[in-house]
Amino acid sequence: MSKNRQWLYARKPAGKIAKDTFQWNEAAIPEPREGEVLVKTRMLSLDPANRAWMMGKTYRDALEPGQVMSGFTLGEVVESRAGGVASGDLVEGDWGWQDYAALPAHRLVKRTTKAPLELLIGPLSVTGLTAYFGLLEVGRPKPGDTVMVSAAAGAVGSMVGQIAKLSGCRVIGTAGGQDKCDWLVRDLGFDAAIDYKAGGVLRAVAAAAPQGIDVYFDNTGGVALDVALMLMNLRGRIVCCGNVSQYDVDKPGPGPMAVPGLVVVKRLRMEGFIVTDFYDRRAEAEARLARWIADGRIKAEVDIFDGLERAPEALIGLFEGNNRGKRAVRVS
Amino acid sequence: MSKNRQWLYARKPAGKIAKDTFQWNEAAIPEPREGEVLVKTRMLSLDPANRAWMMGKTYRDALEPGQVMSGFTLGEVVESRAGGVASGDLVEGDWGWQDYAALPAHRLVKRTTKAPLELLIGPLSVTGLTAYFGLLEVGRPKPGDTVMVSAAAGAVGSMVGQIAKLSGCRVIGTAGGQDKCDWLVRDLGFDAAIDYKAGGVLRAVAAAAPQGIDVYFDNTGGVALDVALMLMNLRGRIVCCGNVSQYDVDKPGPGPMAVPGLVVVKRLRMEGFIVTDFYDRRAEAEARLARWIADGRIKAEVDIFDGLERAPEALIGLFEGNNRGKRAVRVS
Repeated sequence: MSKNRQWLYARKPAGKIAKDTFQWNEAAIPEPREGEVLVKTRMLSLDPANRAWMMGKTYRDALEPGQVMSGFTLGEVVESRAGGVASGDLVEGDWGWQDYAALPAHRLVKRTTKAPLELLIGPLSVTGLTAYFGLLEVGRPKPGDTVMVSAAAGAVGSMVGQIAKLSGCRVIGTAGGQDKCDWLVRDLGFDAAIDYKAGGVLRAVAAAAPQGIDVYFDNTGGVALDVALMLMNLRGRIVCCGNVSQYDVDKPGPGPMAVPGLVVVKRLRMEGFIVTDFYDRRAEAEARLARWIADGRIKAEVDIFDGLERAPEALIGLFEGNNRGKRAVRVS
Repeated sequence: MSKNRQWLYARKPAGKIAKDTFQWNEAAIPEPREGEVLVKTRMLSLDPANRAWMMGKTYRDALEPGQVMSGFTLGEVVESRAGGVASGDLVEGDWGWQDYAALPAHRLVKRTTKAPLELLIGPLSVTGLTAYFGLLEVGRPKPGDTVMVSAAAGAVGSMVGQIAKLSGCRVIGTAGGQDKCDWLVRDLGFDAAIDYKAGGVLRAVAAAAPQGIDVYFDNTGGVALDVALMLMNLRGRIVCCGNVSQYDVDKPGPGPMAVPGLVVVKRLRMEGFIVTDFYDRRAEAEARLARWIADGRIKAEVDIFDGLERAPEALIGLFEGNNRGKRAVRVS
C-alpha cells in the first residue's frame, strides 16, 4: 500500500449524518519529522462523540469540513523518530479515519496489555474506562442500590450495567428494541431492560424499580433522563456521560423540565465527567477490567466492521441503533 | 384577643397567586392536649417556597384547599403541656398563617439567640442558613472564584452574595430592576449586578465575569440558569436552591437546554439541597451569622409588613419582586 486512504469530514450535517457527510480521499503517506512517529492504523473506534464533535467546540475543537474525520484509533508504529517509541509498538491515539498518520510521540499512548485488538479498542480503552470511572467514581453505587443506565446495549452502557451488577446493585437498562432488551437480561445479567421505543417508559421503569433509582448513568439525555429524574430517590446521583439522543438531530429537543425543580426537592447530584479526567488511574482500571473479562464476569461485546471503506456506514448505523456493544472498524 | 384569626389556602391558583387564593377565617383558639404547646404567633416568614407547596408534593405534602395557609413562624409559648418548653419561650415552627396554634413540642425549635425578632425570622433562621450551608457546603467557593447568584436582592441571594464576598470571591448577582442592582453593588458590596429585565443578560453577565463562573447559586432556574450554564468554568458547581422563576406561572417554561450537554463537556456538578439537611450544624452556623451581622460584615436587610391581615399582599408582592432582603409579617 503506497497511498494513505482517508475519509474527510465533508460537510456539517443538517440533521442526521449521511454518506455525503464524508468524502473519500487518497493522499501521500506522510513523512514523520524529528520527534514524530509514523503510525499505521489497525482499528478505528466509532463513538457517539464523533457526531458531537461536528456540532461545535466541546472538550476539543469542533471538526471543520475538509479535515480528516476524527476518531479514536489503535495502530502500529512503522517508523519512529522519537524517543520512547519504537517500530512495532502498539499505540493508541486520535489520528482519525485514515491508514497512516505522522504525529508527535506525546500524542500517543503505548499499549502493553496483552489482549486482542477488539478489546484494546473499546472495552479496555475509552469505552470500558468511561463505564468504570463514571459509574464507580462519579455514581458511587452501594450494594443494594438500584442503578439505571440508558443506551444500555451500547458500548459504555453494556459495561456500566455489568459493573453495577458486580457492585451488588439492581440494574435496569433502557435500549431500543426488544432484541437488545432480551440480550441485556439473558446474556448480560441485567435485572430488567426497557424498550424505550415501545412507549410507556416511565411506567415500565417505575415497575422495574420498585425501590426507586439511586444512581442513573445517563448516556442519552432526552426521555430517559426525564424518566430517571422523576424516579430518583432522595440524594440520588446522576452521572452525566453523554447526550446521544440530541446529537444526530436537526433541532435539539427541550431540556429536562425537572431541572432544577426535582434536583432541589430530591437533593440530587448531577455531575458530568470526561474519562480522561481519571487517566492517572488508568492502569489500575484497565487491569481490573481485563481480569473481569478474562474471568467471564464481564462480557465485552464487540461489533466489528471490516475495512476503512465501511467507516461511514458503521457510524451512521450507530445512530440508527443497530449496534450491540462496542462498534469498531478493523482497518488493517 | 379571644379568637384565632387565620388565612386559609382557598384555591389552587391558575397562574399567579392573587387575593382569592386565600380566605380570611376566624376560629376558636385551640386547646393544647397532653404533650402539646399553645403558641402565639409573633412573626410570619414569607418565602417563595410557600408558592411551590401549592403545586404539589415537594419535601413536604402539598397544600390542600381549606387548610390554614402554611409558612414558617416564630412565636411565644403561652401554655405548655409538654416537657422542655415553658410559657414565655420563643419558638420556631411551621404552624402557618394564624394567631395561635396547638402542636406537639417536637415540632418546635426553641430559640435562645439574643437578637431582634426581625433577624430571628430570616437572617438567623431558614434564610440565612440556606445561604450559609448552600454556598459553603454545596458550592464550596475558593478565594478568587467568581460566584454568581440569581434573585440576588432576595432574602437568600443577598446573604449568599455577602458570604461569598467574605470568602474572597468575585460576586455577580442578577435581580429585577436597576434600583435593586444599585443597592447590591453600593450597599452590599457585590462586584456587579445585572438587571435581568433589561435584556442582554448573557452578554452582561459575561462582561461582568471575564474569568467565567466557578460557583452559581441558583434561586430561580429559568434564564439565569441558562446563562450560568453557558458561562460556567470547567468543574464549576451549581447549587440548586430554588426555581422561583417557575413557581408563580400558569405553564412552566422549558428545561435548561444545556442540560445534560454542557454538564458533561464542562464536568459540572449540579446539586440540590434543603437547608434542614444541615441542621445538625445549625448552632455553629447561626453563631457565625450572628457575629457577622453584629460586626456589620453582613447587612441583614429585612422588609416587614405589619399585621396578619397583610400576609396575602406581602406574598403576592414577593412574586412581583417588590421586596428587598427578607420579607416577613409581624403578627403580634
